[in-house]
Amino acid sequence: MSASIQTPAAPHRRGRRSAAPAAPARAPNYRQLRNPFPVTSVFSDDEAANMHETALRTLEELGMRVLLPEARKVYASGGARVEDDMVFIGREMVAAALATAPRSIHCVAGNPARDVTLELGALAFQPGAGAPHVTDLIRGRRPGSGADFVEYTRLAHHFDVFQMMSPSIEPQDIPTHLRHFFTTRAQVEHTDKFPFLFARGTPQTLDNFEMLRIARGLSDEQFQSGVHAYTIINTNSPRTLDIPMAQGLIDFARHGQMSIVTPFTLMGAMAPITVAGAITLSHAECLAAITLTQLVNPGAPVCYGTFTSNVDMKSGAPAFGTPTHFQASLAAGQMARMLGLPWRSAAGSASNTNDVQAANENQLGLWGCLLGGATVIIHSAGWLEGGLTVSYEKIITDVEVLNMVAELCAGNKAGTDEIGFANALAKVAPSGHFFAAPQTMDRYTTEFYQPIVHDYANFGTWTERGAMDANARATSVWESVLTSPPLSQTPPDRLEALAAFIDKRAAEGGAPPES
Amino acid sequence: MSASIQTPAAPHRRGRRSAAPAAPARAPNYRQLRNPFPVTSVFSDDEAANMHETALRTLEELGMRVLLPEARKVYASGGARVEDDMVFIGREMVAAALATAPRSIHCVAGNPARDVTLELGALAFQPGAGAPHVTDLIRGRRPGSGADFVEYTRLAHHFDVFQMMSPSIEPQDIPTHLRHFFTTRAQVEHTDKFPFLFARGTPQTLDNFEMLRIARGLSDEQFQSGVHAYTIINTNSPRTLDIPMAQGLIDFARHGQMSIVTPFTLMGAMAPITVAGAITLSHAECLAAITLTQLVNPGAPVCYGTFTSNVDMKSGAPAFGTPTHFQASLAAGQMARMLGLPWRSAAGSASNTNDVQAANENQLGLWGCLLGGATVIIHSAGWLEGGLTVSYEKIITDVEVLNMVAELCAGNKAGTDEIGFANALAKVAPSGHFFAAPQTMDRYTTEFYQPIVHDYANFGTWTERGAMDANARATSVWESVLTSPPLSQTPPDRLEALAAFIDKRAAEGGAPPES
Repeated sequence: MSASIQTPAAPHRRGRRSAAPAAPARAPNYRQLRNPFPVTSVFSDDEAANMHETALRTLEELGMRVLLPEARKVYASGGARVEDDMVFIGREMVAAALATAPRSIHCVAGNPARDVTLELGALAFQPGAGAPHVTDLIRGRRPGSGADFVEYTRLAHHFDVFQMMSPSIEPQDIPTHLRHFFTTRAQVEHTDKFPFLFARGTPQTLDNFEMLRIARGLSDEQFQSGVHAYTIINTNSPRTLDIPMAQGLIDFARHGQMSIVTPFTLMGAMAPITVAGAITLSHAECLAAITLTQLVNPGAPVCYGTFTSNVDMKSGAPAFGTPTHFQASLAAGQMARMLGLPWRSAAGSASNTNDVQAANENQLGLWGCLLGGATVIIHSAGWLEGGLTVSYEKIITDVEVLNMVAELCAGNKAGTDEIGFANALAKVAPSGHFFAAPQTMDRYTTEFYQPIVHDYANFGTWTERGAMDANARATSVWESVLTSPPLSQTPPDRLEALAAFIDKRAAEGGAPPES
Repeated sequence: MSASIQTPAAPHRRGRRSAAPAAPARAPNYRQLRNPFPVTSVFSDDEAANMHETALRTLEELGMRVLLPEARKVYASGGARVEDDMVFIGREMVAAALATAPRSIHCVAGNPARDVTLELGALAFQPGAGAPHVTDLIRGRRPGSGADFVEYTRLAHHFDVFQMMSPSIEPQDIPTHLRHFFTTRAQVEHTDKFPFLFARGTPQTLDNFEMLRIARGLSDEQFQSGVHAYTIINTNSPRTLDIPMAQGLIDFARHGQMSIVTPFTLMGAMAPITVAGAITLSHAECLAAITLTQLVNPGAPVCYGTFTSNVDMKSGAPAFGTPTHFQASLAAGQMARMLGLPWRSAAGSASNTNDVQAANENQLGLWGCLLGGATVIIHSAGWLEGGLTVSYEKIITDVEVLNMVAELCAGNKAGTDEIGFANALAKVAPSGHFFAAPQTMDRYTTEFYQPIVHDYANFGTWTERGAMDANARATSVWESVLTSPPLSQTPPDRLEALAAFIDKRAAEGGAPPES
């Protein structure tokens, strides 16, 4: 039968005629992923154990510099030796904290279908975050604005492969004493995904909690009994915990919300030049921060985190997606598995434009995180310039890769129908083709991932269509997302109550960030 | 001490003063690699066993169409049932062939330092191959020529991360009856790496063997007692072995040279639409070809191979670097490990230009091969348009990724010096930096991979330098390789003898390809 069909297009026409009524539409689920890849180690178990031991020794003998007096009091109350702003943390304190830190954290989104559970083996992606600038091919590179923050939030909401929101970009046109009102409101209005809240001092943090409580329609008790939001705490490597970061750890733990502790360490600069040394330092700082959260509220949700890459030793410039960045992710995964805690890692790119370097760096960094068994992978899309800029086009081209990874998470089958001796192999003559085989007819609408920006046209057709590269094609993809009418993810009455709260607090002077 | 150093650049100046005399240059070895990644399966062992069983049933019940009478005779002599051009191969014949096919193949290069041993666990890369066209940013897209073949050979020779030569490009300006003289001579003249020889009929193959024997200074006995060259045999899926391919299997086996058997199957076109079905078909064809080599010469070097991706079911166009391409590589790796044979897989890109799509497709396909435990990864650099074109710039940008993978093959250490409590962690005050730590001074010239085309300059500097993307920067990299004077890899007297042989055979009319 197949011999009667001569062109690739034909079976689809036939398929639409004969099989289409039964042909299901493709409906992949990217919302709750499990990492399908075997965890990979770069060091031996003994080497990893020595790194952990050295991290404990570092906290005991070298200590952490803690700039917030309240945090030093908490450490002291837990048995730490405090001298001026230095805190020396004993291993028994760390052990006690690790005994109460949860191994699995259920994160409550605005929509139960968007909830994510963070634990070893789970996998969640976030778009690139924390950038002061944004860029796209229409409007060029510019300082991040409130309008950009909203667009970015809508893009991050649109793609299911982002299971969590991120700090995204810095809306520099919003006054800093009002900025947290804007960023939190934008998230509850434009997405029902698990939100990120900035931790820039207790007044802003408490405003953020109150805004989320209003948007979700929760009592204080309901809010504090579930994990409804998270923040990211970057220690100041080496061995320093500054005032807003220490305050954030305390405030989020006290209210039962999640901190993702992430020392951001560049090998050769603020961390040792070796992977082993850098991860040992990062691990020590992470243990110190985790200990603080558990002293404040035993059982408080806290996620282990690392973000370690290297600098270019010729210029001191940060590099990402390098072999040492990859190995640092593997090493961090070994430490996280030793603790049994969910952990975050990061991809990213140092490239200045969304080019081949940007793609290769981001994907190499991504594979380091995936093989390291990371639970949360931040900066998995859109990062340029080592995080100084996010690119709308790069979000799209990176989502293509993340979607493909999500497809791999779904696995595949080799049952009788899939192997297909009867419905495929025996149905096609030598030198024939499978376009019209029964197995093909049953599956051609659903078997393969459909790309959002990759183009399979041949050279002639592609040239006739304008010879647009993937970066240029990505513009129309994000434009189509943003031109669709925004749908509020929070009921109008709650948005009104939220607006009233913001107006009241703004009239009171808002809340400037603390440092 | 580190507090006295304020800028990233300073420690390097200090380093050059104080540590440079002892600072070693970086000298990575990419010539013999072992795959450091855990092998990953997509199917259960039972599912893989069922695929193998179905492949055996396919050969027994459905048979292979074999167009070369000599090959049918060989199969018949081994016990196969032959009806017209159909050959039905019993599982006992396959089992006998698998019992004699070598598990480890030592490939002899023109220079012992370039020898590679192909076996499960080893890793070798080849640049993109078999392209009728070439492209670069200086001269544009064009049909492949002899001049291009030489340039391509020199580029492939230059980068150690390519351990084997490939069919590279088709020199269309060389008459087909003389083309094999040109391609074989160009390889022995411009590289001492393990060469690829075309198998387009016995006369060309015997010419190629004789040319290599002359270039290497080997007697017939010496040549046949070692594996000095290889060819690639693509079956004509489904279930067809054409005349030159069957002849190549016979000729290379008879002379002790290596065939890499690679059914090139596109899911939904010349193979079933499922990964399981496509790999089952590919596996059956591979077993048929391996059986032929072992019937001709038990113990003849033969490499298991697969290259399976999917077509875009909307257009019928080939797609590469897709989730199903990735899963097909994992599935093929399971089949190869079941046999215990070295195996080749392939990356590649369908993109029409060296853009973000091209980078992401090639790297995703590469990771499928790496996690599948592939021994040889072909088309690992340079492929565009699904192999219709190779790009000089893409060779460079892909080599950057391959170099990074080779760096990962070297692993890393976490001994006392690397963890660095005494020589790094305890030497830097909180909030300080490690630029001048003893550990940094000892390692800053050697610790990190140095990129060939990636650029870590900040946005301002990059803009001042012309805002060139990686593709544009890659041009100057390949130009610098080709502007260096070519060094002949074969002594002049042997090149003279080679020229005399070619003149004689050309005068006799050369050898047109057979089909």
